[in-house]
Amino acid sequence: MDTAENSSQVDLFQIAMSDDDGSQQKNENNGSQQENENDGSQQENDNGSQQENDDITKLSSQTNLEHLKMEEKEEKTANNQTLQNANQQDQSIHPPTGDDHHHDAKESAAKPESNHNEDSSQANINQNGNEENYINDTDLLYAAIMVEDARRGRKGAVMKKMQALKQYQLYFHPLMRFLLYLTITLNFALALFERPAVPGLELPVWATMVMELYCLVFFLLRLLHNRQFVPSAEKFWKDSKSILIIATLLVTVIDMIVYIAMTASGNQQHALRVSRILRPMFIVNFAENRQIRRGLRNIRRTIPKSASVILLLLLCIAMFALLALKLFQSRNLYNPNGTPYFTRLDDSFWRLYVLLTTANDPDVMMPAYDLDNWFALFFISFMIVCYFILNNILLAVVYQNYRSQLREDIAKSVFIRRKLLKNAYNVLGAWTNHHDVYVTREAWCQLLLRMNSLHGSKFRGDTQIHLLWEILDKDDKGYIGLDNFLQVAELLNVEILEVKDQVHYLQRRFPRFYGSKYSVILRKIVLHKFFRYFFDFSILVNAVMIGIGIDAAEIFFLTLFNIEIVLKLYTLGVKEFARIFWNSFDFLVIVSATIMTIIESSQNGWAHTRALLDFVMVLRVLRIIKLIGDINRFQVIVRTVSQILPTFATYGGILLIFYYVYAILGMELFSGLIRYYGYPNGSQPFNQTLLFCGNIKLKGSGFYADRYCGNNFNNLLKSFVLLIELTIVNQWHDILSKHK
Amino acid sequence: MDTAENSSQVDLFQIAMSDDDGSQQKNENNGSQQENENDGSQQENDNGSQQENDDITKLSSQTNLEHLKMEEKEEKTANNQTLQNANQQDQSIHPPTGDDHHHDAKESAAKPESNHNEDSSQANINQNGNEENYINDTDLLYAAIMVEDARRGRKGAVMKKMQALKQYQLYFHPLMRFLLYLTITLNFALALFERPAVPGLELPVWATMVMELYCLVFFLLRLLHNRQFVPSAEKFWKDSKSILIIATLLVTVIDMIVYIAMTASGNQQHALRVSRILRPMFIVNFAENRQIRRGLRNIRRTIPKSASVILLLLLCIAMFALLALKLFQSRNLYNPNGTPYFTRLDDSFWRLYVLLTTANDPDVMMPAYDLDNWFALFFISFMIVCYFILNNILLAVVYQNYRSQLREDIAKSVFIRRKLLKNAYNVLGAWTNHHDVYVTREAWCQLLLRMNSLHGSKFRGDTQIHLLWEILDKDDKGYIGLDNFLQVAELLNVEILEVKDQVHYLQRRFPRFYGSKYSVILRKIVLHKFFRYFFDFSILVNAVMIGIGIDAAEIFFLTLFNIEIVLKLYTLGVKEFARIFWNSFDFLVIVSATIMTIIESSQNGWAHTRALLDFVMVLRVLRIIKLIGDINRFQVIVRTVSQILPTFATYGGILLIFYYVYAILGMELFSGLIRYYGYPNGSQPFNQTLLFCGNIKLKGSGFYADRYCGNNFNNLLKSFVLLIELTIVNQWHDILSKHK
Repeated sequence: MDTAENSSQVDLFQIAMSDDDGSQQKNENNGSQQENENDGSQQENDNGSQQENDDITKLSSQTNLEHLKMEEKEEKTANNQTLQNANQQDQSIHPPTGDDHHHDAKESAAKPESNHNEDSSQANINQNGNEENYINDTDLLYAAIMVEDARRGRKGAVMKKMQALKQYQLYFHPLMRFLLYLTITLNFALALFERPAVPGLELPVWATMVMELYCLVFFLLRLLHNRQFVPSAEKFWKDSKSILIIATLLVTVIDMIVYIAMTASGNQQHALRVSRILRPMFIVNFAENRQIRRGLRNIRRTIPKSASVILLLLLCIAMFALLALKLFQSRNLYNPNGTPYFTRLDDSFWRLYVLLTTANDPDVMMPAYDLDNWFALFFISFMIVCYFILNNILLAVVYQNYRSQLREDIAKSVFIRRKLLKNAYNVLGAWTNHHDVYVTREAWCQLLLRMNSLHGSKFRGDTQIHLLWEILDKDDKGYIGLDNFLQVAELLNVEILEVKDQVHYLQRRFPRFYGSKYSVILRKIVLHKFFRYFFDFSILVNAVMIGIGIDAAEIFFLTLFNIEIVLKLYTLGVKEFARIFWNSFDFLVIVSATIMTIIESSQNGWAHTRALLDFVMVLRVLRIIKLIGDINRFQVIVRTVSQILPTFATYGGILLIFYYVYAILGMELFSGLIRYYGYPNGSQPFNQTLLFCGNIKLKGSGFYADRYCGNNFNNLLKSFVLLIELTIVNQWHDILSKHK
Repeated sequence: MDTAENSSQVDLFQIAMSDDDGSQQKNENNGSQQENENDGSQQENDNGSQQENDDITKLSSQTNLEHLKMEEKEEKTANNQTLQNANQQDQSIHPPTGDDHHHDAKESAAKPESNHNEDSSQANINQNGNEENYINDTDLLYAAIMVEDARRGRKGAVMKKMQALKQYQLYFHPLMRFLLYLTITLNFALALFERPAVPGLELPVWATMVMELYCLVFFLLRLLHNRQFVPSAEKFWKDSKSILIIATLLVTVIDMIVYIAMTASGNQQHALRVSRILRPMFIVNFAENRQIRRGLRNIRRTIPKSASVILLLLLCIAMFALLALKLFQSRNLYNPNGTPYFTRLDDSFWRLYVLLTTANDPDVMMPAYDLDNWFALFFISFMIVCYFILNNILLAVVYQNYRSQLREDIAKSVFIRRKLLKNAYNVLGAWTNHHDVYVTREAWCQLLLRMNSLHGSKFRGDTQIHLLWEILDKDDKGYIGLDNFLQVAELLNVEILEVKDQVHYLQRRFPRFYGSKYSVILRKIVLHKFFRYFFDFSILVNAVMIGIGIDAAEIFFLTLFNIEIVLKLYTLGVKEFARIFWNSFDFLVIVSATIMTIIESSQNGWAHTRALLDFVMVLRVLRIIKLIGDINRFQVIVRTVSQILPTFATYGGILLIFYYVYAILGMELFSGLIRYYGYPNGSQPFNQTLLFCGNIKLKGSGFYADRYCGNNFNNLLKSFVLLIELTIVNQWHDILSKHK
């Protein structure tokens, strides 16, 4: 591994480019390669001068990176059209320097080993073939984008033209994506301001309309932008994503016009903004939210496969409902609230369906059970057959189908990734005398540097480029084949950390003081496990104090924990301290608690610091979490959770979409039907019209008796809370009962 | 496969036995085998007379089976001691007939193929070695028991002595096991008759005591019986099962004496029968209930491994409880029932713990939510962290640990099975000239016939013995090695069905009538799919009629379905009809409905046929299930369910054990505290002392308001219903609240 020594430097081969489209240059390259194929075998043993060549051709990475940054800036300003700029860039790149016989040293070194195998020695590759293998910029950018897309799991649907590639680059530029997310969020958040708005946030109709129009225009522009680089119009119009976006845009615009017309003509009462439930379409259908789209697609595909079990479950409920009707309807039983018990088939079905979710578990049984204890058998057998068996089989079937769907999906995305990498490989590759393609070290370096010039890929220093090559080219052959190249996407996704021996700031600045006897002892104490035990114990004592309600000790504990942080910072240094998550957490909690406490004591007013006080209290209690970080077994669990959190996030997103749709629907249908006015207190008189959540229909209902008036669809936030409650299932039938 | 032709006949080699212990005979066998090893190579090509020998040595299976049945009867009557009988049996077995060079034909046929491999041809086996290989009866019985135990998953802990083996056979005799199950059931059911008994079933104390004493004596005898054949006393006393049974017996006896003494001295109020909760010990610790024991063991071992997640979950609840206390206690909030809201830490913890089970989902939040909507965030974040994340991680950890535990357990049982089969193999085996053991066809037949004489293994006819041999000896070598023999247990568990072309009874008796033109047309109609569709449709119409409540059509439908059954029986014949589960189901439902309807109409009295009427109604509705059997997609589900039902049964058993323990505990602690007296009806006056479930403490409680008085521990059945309700989780905190 002689090349590993100068791993901080990277060979850089400058690229000559005469033509924007690159086709002319490309043909020349191909021609020269084919010529070289024939005499490649004679030159194979010509080696030894490699190191010298390396030294001549290398460039300091510093200059190169600056040069690339320049490029990127130019790209950012080129929002309207990049063709001219691209031409300028091409001209700014230096002419090539010679680079013959680059990796022959390793090639011939590998030779003796392969002598015993006659067949495989034919696979020896003409290294000199890439003497003039200057990859033109279009190809290079195309390859870089392909690799980048493979890394990020994109589909890489882009034409191999400089203009399209630049547009593609712009399309996925972090700034553009940030704008997209911002617009989607704004579009989503509009429901907060539209009527029924969250109290205090309501905006006039024209204001929300203007904001929505901005969003729509942005989405349209983004779609048109997408059209610029998609390989063919056909592909664009066949993509369900773009069609759905266009349809949604159309429907929304029509809906807005109808709404404005109806409001203008005084029909405000009946004016609905139905298209609002389509807003999640923009989340789902823009290319970025691949995970959410995949999750939704899998759900969509899983349902039909589980249909037969669902049907069987419903049939089972129907049969038990019929049985319940026949058994109980002639017995004159009543529910506690006075309604008749199982006297109609639909009511019977509904009650048993609710029982399936366990929400009315003993209640539904009690009247029959009180009449004759043996009727319990009916409900128990229902629970065993429908709940314990069929319900769990449904779970198993959904799980199994979802899993196999996911597996298919992953196989597909792996296939796409391989296709992209193969594209890149073919573009980058040189040819051997046997028409095998391979990627040389030069091409690799060019590729990675080009990728560095793409947004958001600033993770590959020269050392890393070199290191990655060493990994890919394990056998030191000086080139990589397709097999190795297909690993590139995974490899680039591995985060490479440079571990440096950090020298403490104080050590550097005040070595004598920091190294003094007392300082060393102090640092030893801090690093001792009893130091940790002591502060863990302090947290416990603090928690007990909070529990009992002794606030006087708070200042003491706050000081104590501040001292802990200072001591740790002193001993470990900032970087080492921040490296451990729990330290940062502790720092955040303690420092903000300190600041809040100072603010609290300086204000001296109770009334308007209630929220502040609550916040301080939360910060105090949060300290306890640090204990979890100090116990090894808990650390493992926390680490596991944090690893599966991204998956949670995806399904959180999907859940959000569903919540949003239902919230909008609920608001259109039920807003204002139920209002919270408080409840009669007994001691003070209460306005009768405000009773029953302001809705006389709720008189005597369990909904009012349980004081659920706060659960309503009066604004987006209330709706979300209500939907979360319904997700948790319990009492959902009671919450739902208000629809009556 | 020339032997497959006479597969309905089996070569039977009679066994000579001179000695009960068999050791003398065994030595002789070994001696003769070793002699034959040397000259085996000369006789290898001596073949061709095999078929003739087969004909000479075969016995009609009929005679043989009768003979074996005789043996079994003798065993059954020999409950006290079987030694003498065994001797008689030995003498009743015929002397051997000659059987030389039995399978050499195949041996030499295989020879040419093995010529190219010099090493493997050395493995050729001296077939003539088993010329005088008469296995003595002890060995044979031992081997049979080993194989049987391997089949049934038993541990096979038995001494290799005739007496012990006979005892072992008796111990696992179906009759003895039936007695055991009966006694265990009786012991369990005693709780129905002991105070607090199910109304109408209460027996005097002396009666239940006598019954319990009988159970204890039976268990003791069974334990002593077990001691008779366990290989060593040490092994007996090291077995946790026997120790637990002895301990339970002792505790129960002491408990009974104390109870009698206390009742005699007038302290009946304080006399508890604590040992009753130990009764499930007898279920768990008798060898038969392996599955339940395994399930319990796995649960026991899974809990410690999941401890850290449980602890983290509790810590998380504690932290949120502290936070809730600090946030809400100073705000003077009240629950709907007037109790203060989150004012004590223990109450706070309890409420959040209940919330974790979703049982008080929106209720616990409402007061804070009504005060300030933002407090919803507190509860939502609690639900996300503790319920959605930690709770599910706990589920995953438990699942994972339980699975790996189960896998370990299965690996262990496979190991034991292999050990048993190896034992049997070594006992049965003859030796080759290279000291390799093998099992000959004769030994195989002897083994299977001996196994037939064991109880409950009457599944192997002569055809089957032959067929099994063909499967084991795939290469027609005439012997089976250890590898093949280890598959015996699985192989014997495969149910072999003999498919015969059934000739319809009517076809046999009245061929002309049955084959007549109209009969054939009728049968074609019955087999047509529209015939099925018509009756499926009829069931649907019937269901609708039942739903609407038109009872007049019932007679019509009953006749219709009876006709269907008759037609099907006519077409298919009884056996073919009964082969399909859904037909039998239909037959059962329709015929019992017909009988019940006839009884119902003949009695003409409404009052005392209410239960009968209910039963008829259930039978009517059950008809709908047949529809499920007619739809293919549902059939698959039903078949799957029926396949996993045994697993359900095991866990049902485990659940029963837990229910029993908790029911006994609950009855001892809470019986009589809550009684159901009905509820005030408004119209009629109600005795105040009967209000609140007869317990004034329940005044104003949700328990009474929800009319849960029927949920109590007043007898075993009530307790079971209550525990099932608690298993379904909803409202459990309300049911529990009565303990206050």
